[in-house]
Amino acid sequence: MAGNSFGTALRFTTWGESHGPAIGVVVDGTPPGLALDEALIQRDLDRRRPGQSRYTTQRREADAVRILSGVFDGRTTGTPIALEIENTDQRSRDYGEIARTFRPGHADYTYWAKYGIRDYRGGGRASARETASRVAAGAIARLILTQAGIRVRGAMIAMGDREIDRARWDWAAVDANDFFCPDAEAAAAWGPALDQIRKAGSSIGAIVEVVADGVPAGLGEPIYDKLDGDLARAMMTINAVKGVEIGDGFAAARLPGEVNADEMRRGADGRPVFLSNHAGGILGGISSGQDVVVRLAVKPTSSLLIPRRTLDIDGNETEIVTRGRHDPCVGIRAVPVAEAMMALVLADHWLRHRAMGPDVFR
Amino acid sequence: MAGNSFGTALRFTTWGESHGPAIGVVVDGTPPGLALDEALIQRDLDRRRPGQSRYTTQRREADAVRILSGVFDGRTTGTPIALEIENTDQRSRDYGEIARTFRPGHADYTYWAKYGIRDYRGGGRASARETASRVAAGAIARLILTQAGIRVRGAMIAMGDREIDRARWDWAAVDANDFFCPDAEAAAAWGPALDQIRKAGSSIGAIVEVVADGVPAGLGEPIYDKLDGDLARAMMTINAVKGVEIGDGFAAARLPGEVNADEMRRGADGRPVFLSNHAGGILGGISSGQDVVVRLAVKPTSSLLIPRRTLDIDGNETEIVTRGRHDPCVGIRAVPVAEAMMALVLADHWLRHRAMGPDVFR
Amino acid sequence: MAGNSFGTALRFTTWGESHGPAIGVVVDGTPPGLALDEALIQRDLDRRRPGQSRYTTQRREADAVRILSGVFDGRTTGTPIALEIENTDQRSRDYGEIARTFRPGHADYTYWAKYGIRDYRGGGRASARETASRVAAGAIARLILTQAGIRVRGAMIAMGDREIDRARWDWAAVDANDFFCPDAEAAAAWGPALDQIRKAGSSIGAIVEVVADGVPAGLGEPIYDKLDGDLARAMMTINAVKGVEIGDGFAAARLPGEVNADEMRRGADGRPVFLSNHAGGILGGISSGQDVVVRLAVKPTSSLLIPRRTLDIDGNETEIVTRGRHDPCVGIRAVPVAEAMMALVLADHWLRHRAMGPDVFR
Amino acid sequence: MAGNSFGTALRFTTWGESHGPAIGVVVDGTPPGLALDEALIQRDLDRRRPGQSRYTTQRREADAVRILSGVFDGRTTGTPIALEIENTDQRSRDYGEIARTFRPGHADYTYWAKYGIRDYRGGGRASARETASRVAAGAIARLILTQAGIRVRGAMIAMGDREIDRARWDWAAVDANDFFCPDAEAAAAWGPALDQIRKAGSSIGAIVEVVADGVPAGLGEPIYDKLDGDLARAMMTINAVKGVEIGDGFAAARLPGEVNADEMRRGADGRPVFLSNHAGGILGGISSGQDVVVRLAVKPTSSLLIPRRTLDIDGNETEIVTRGRHDPCVGIRAVPVAEAMMALVLADHWLRHRAMGPDVFR
Repeated sequence: MAGNSFGTALRFTTWGESHGPAIGVVVDGTPPGLALDEALIQRDLDRRRPGQSRYTTQRREADAVRILSGVFDGRTTGTPIALEIENTDQRSRDYGEIARTFRPGHADYTYWAKYGIRDYRGGGRASARETASRVAAGAIARLILTQAGIRVRGAMIAMGDREIDRARWDWAAVDANDFFCPDAEAAAAWGPALDQIRKAGSSIGAIVEVVADGVPAGLGEPIYDKLDGDLARAMMTINAVKGVEIGDGFAAARLPGEVNADEMRRGADGRPVFLSNHAGGILGGISSGQDVVVRLAVKPTSSLLIPRRTLDIDGNETEIVTRGRHDPCVGIRAVPVAEAMMALVLADHWLRHRAMGPDVFR
Repeated sequence: MAGNSFGTALRFTTWGESHGPAIGVVVDGTPPGLALDEALIQRDLDRRRPGQSRYTTQRREADAVRILSGVFDGRTTGTPIALEIENTDQRSRDYGEIARTFRPGHADYTYWAKYGIRDYRGGGRASARETASRVAAGAIARLILTQAGIRVRGAMIAMGDREIDRARWDWAAVDANDFFCPDAEAAAAWGPALDQIRKAGSSIGAIVEVVADGVPAGLGEPIYDKLDGDLARAMMTINAVKGVEIGDGFAAARLPGEVNADEMRRGADGRPVFLSNHAGGILGGISSGQDVVVRLAVKPTSSLLIPRRTLDIDGNETEIVTRGRHDPCVGIRAVPVAEAMMALVLADHWLRHRAMGPDVFR
Repeated sequence: MAGNSFGTALRFTTWGESHGPAIGVVVDGTPPGLALDEALIQRDLDRRRPGQSRYTTQRREADAVRILSGVFDGRTTGTPIALEIENTDQRSRDYGEIARTFRPGHADYTYWAKYGIRDYRGGGRASARETASRVAAGAIARLILTQAGIRVRGAMIAMGDREIDRARWDWAAVDANDFFCPDAEAAAAWGPALDQIRKAGSSIGAIVEVVADGVPAGLGEPIYDKLDGDLARAMMTINAVKGVEIGDGFAAARLPGEVNADEMRRGADGRPVFLSNHAGGILGGISSGQDVVVRLAVKPTSSLLIPRRTLDIDGNETEIVTRGRHDPCVGIRAVPVAEAMMALVLADHWLRHRAMGPDVFR
Repeated sequence: MAGNSFGTALRFTTWGESHGPAIGVVVDGTPPGLALDEALIQRDLDRRRPGQSRYTTQRREADAVRILSGVFDGRTTGTPIALEIENTDQRSRDYGEIARTFRPGHADYTYWAKYGIRDYRGGGRASARETASRVAAGAIARLILTQAGIRVRGAMIAMGDREIDRARWDWAAVDANDFFCPDAEAAAAWGPALDQIRKAGSSIGAIVEVVADGVPAGLGEPIYDKLDGDLARAMMTINAVKGVEIGDGFAAARLPGEVNADEMRRGADGRPVFLSNHAGGILGGISSGQDVVVRLAVKPTSSLLIPRRTLDIDGNETEIVTRGRHDPCVGIRAVPVAEAMMALVLADHWLRHRAMGPDVFR
């Protein structure tokens, strides 16, 4: 049953397989009149693009996006925006083994169980290549958010058990290293560590944090379309993500109530200020006006050079080694994807709130 | 904009405020012919009911459910099932302070910011009382799952920084203590600890785990209606939940890939078996046939006897103490609610998969 | 699969059977701050109420509505509004024949075929009693429209082959006769004619027209959520409706293009005026600022005292006569129902347009 | 707000403007394992293709479809199917007049009013060119229906006030004339009549009928997703359609109940047979097992060589003549489009019913 769309007011639908002719996304619900061209989308796509350092897959894709509809004379028209990215590096190869064997930790077995057929080339639809479509759609969401004064930024804050020192957090550092890491010192140490992991044919997990500032109070539609509920779903649908938390998240479970509840005072400008942000900017599913903070756990990729025990499609026991191109730490490239998903959720709710806010009849 | 519904094939819509005349839920999409009566739903409601131990709110509610439609001669008819629960203990009181002051950590301020009006009596719509509707709907989901051979069970596995010993996990213990705790020994220690917290006017967070067994491989609709994405949203919409993880969750971020990927072998009956379950029963957003395992972080309630700094609706600085009835550890009653939400997600996907599976034309 | 909801920004879900304890509706997405009480809803319900003349069913129902949520201190809060109407006249009787026999022209057979079970008492869920829920929800939609300066009015313009004279159209006449007929002279003749039909145990069809004025240009979301598409669906879901047309409708199929296309001029106030309204106020699925005009064909009820050939649930051939209470011309009571559905569609699109209009960033 | 999608279990989303680089559709929810190639879709597209007789627009489009995803080794995989059709004949021209003037009867003014911007080239998104995407999606729906034993066929049964003689109805005739007309004799007369209309720079409306046979009893999800409700919406969203009726439709409004109600008998094979089909195969919103019959009224195109009075975007009064390529009777090419829409509705409901039918647990 149909499941390839996300969002309500701003709704996008992705399509495409890793080794098909192209992938793409249709973004429906963009307000009219916004200046949009391919360059704006390309900027975001280039941050996610593979092959930019030795820590990401060596697949070579230009990831050049084409806008096929919804823009006229450089402005959005309110009609659906179709974006398309050609697959250029579907390396010709023998899929014999992967075609018949389930890679442990991958979706090979479950797609087979669900559909009775699967496009095994490069993971087919389950490939992280699909996330390029999210990033492209996310660029449009960001365009909307910019108008609304909202900014979304992400960073990788842990690789395996190596964590950053939050005291050294510097947004400027994020784009200056290969890890989208806000702690330049930590990033410097992660390089050699990941080299070792890569050479061992292993992989490692990561934690990513995404922060939105400028979010007005009032976004989110209780009870089931809460802002945090939608963020949790959005993040959990990203390949390899196994956990999502808002604000203090799991750490909040260890706190007493008087520490966890963020107190309020009157700011210099007369507007409410909070004295802390344990809640991550969301109370009762509605944004509070503070920064919205989301963290996600990314598992280590299961594409490994270390042999693993598994079954083939006939049920025979066998072993598999995943040769070919992959990321030793998929958490790195999850950063722009997570940013895109947060932007898409926030833009959707920003538009949704317009239909509901207290100013409807003012 | 409308946000009070959840689910696709099995869809429910809840309504009602903490201190209104009643709360309720409409469950749409239940297959016809299932034996259903109020007693079946009441059983689940009674597990969530307040006032059952000194560790939960002393509000006295019978939580007696009435079935108003969708059942004929003791069987479901396929038409919407309306369930209603009267609010009987809306204690008459002066709401003066709470009416004009935002309780820190509660949704008071955000509802005000969003709607410009709020029903402040007992938290209104944002009250955890709404979760009774979820549990009632969940009982119908469970009825569907039972037919499908699926069982959903939950437990509280940590209170603050006190964790259970998983080696002592015993499902039979869960209903034999006041904490839905699977470790009887841990539960025995939690009692006095929570007494102390309660007497201090404080509160404490918790971690809840829910496990479904008997789930067939194939449930979940990639890419955006993945089973884990929907579970994450479902859990994150429960009051006070700040984090959700599947399988190893955040711990997976610390693992190397060869440890995390669950290997497969052929079972004695010829069917696939996994040698571990780091994935929590979900790969690529689709169930693998293993147990589905979800964990959620519940923050400590912000209803406290310890004074907290805040603002009133005119923007004046003030302090507040939340007198009245509340739970020192809301994680306890989150257990049956989380079970209900998992049952609702699984039943929805079980029905959705019927429209899509490889046997459609067989 | 779930199908008992309608609308996107303003979404309602109805429940209840003809002879169950109650029927009701949950309206989700109402903007906050609107003055709402039961009397406002009751006014609309009373227009649809049975037993008001000898031309409608003699079932006696007070149709007294209760608001169970979503309103606080006399104002909407933005949370779901639950409305409930008790069934008081579920006349105790023997359902033997109707329980086992399919009434021709009714939904008895199709519900049986779909669900394998049906609540046969008074038609169960398929009864026109469900339309009371629509009228109740429609009153809330009207409340929204009133704020927006939009008015919705309906009338019955033909009974069988007896048509009104449009030159005599007088909205004031509509509520002054038993037929919601805008032509008092026609209505006077319809009375005796319908008496005869009723006495013969027969029934007769009708045509209903609904007109909305004050509709701003710009409502409707192309391509698949066009305003006329949603109106067509809305009207066609009303019991006994078999046709829907917008503006000239089927007559437009007979026109040459130069007659059909509504020309535009500049009005005295500088705003566009149309010189005709063949389009019924909708072009390309978007409102043009003219009156929105919808017409629906209502079939004669199949509840007849004239014996009809049919089958019983075991497949045996038999005959049936539908004794009991029914409307000889269901088109009459379809008028307030059709008004409600148009109000619900327009309010939904009015709210939806807010998320999309060119003023989003102005 | 997003409105370019249709369907629930089988859901499609179209995109593209008349004179953009391409148009397309994403079809989500196709069951896996169906044999699908471009030729199968092309067959349906070719029936709608412009320029096939002098009675349709002389725009030259190959309408060659490409499948970009969702098919592997010639079979559907259950993932979204992206279809794309290049626009090859976007004749270079001066859009000066049309860019600044609202064509009466077209969507020019309403798009302008809604979005404040419009792609005026060839009607942009409001162009009937969008219907090629529907026909492409419809071919996939038909593929599903064929498996289910359901066939959908359409015909044009009136051009202006020239009607067919239903006694001469011959499905074989439909593809043997330029009008998809089932009455060869009528078609012969329509030719010269339409020549005259075309030469006069005028246009004419039409009535189209679509019939599905082999539809099992039980499709349709009451109350708001009734089969007839969804068909009405589907048809009304087709460009130029102003009316929809099921079975006898508007004629039913003139009938007495005893004529209109279709009586039932036991067929030779023991299964129910109906003695007539006034209901058009739908009762209570659920298919009865009879042929499903839908009729639609198509207005005459407003693209005329006869000057019409109108306004320009600055509000100045002016006149316009629509030069260029268009159809003197758009009803002709509406036939394959209406077939596609019916196929899409039926396939959607066929899949939806699987999640709900009485055999869910058998």
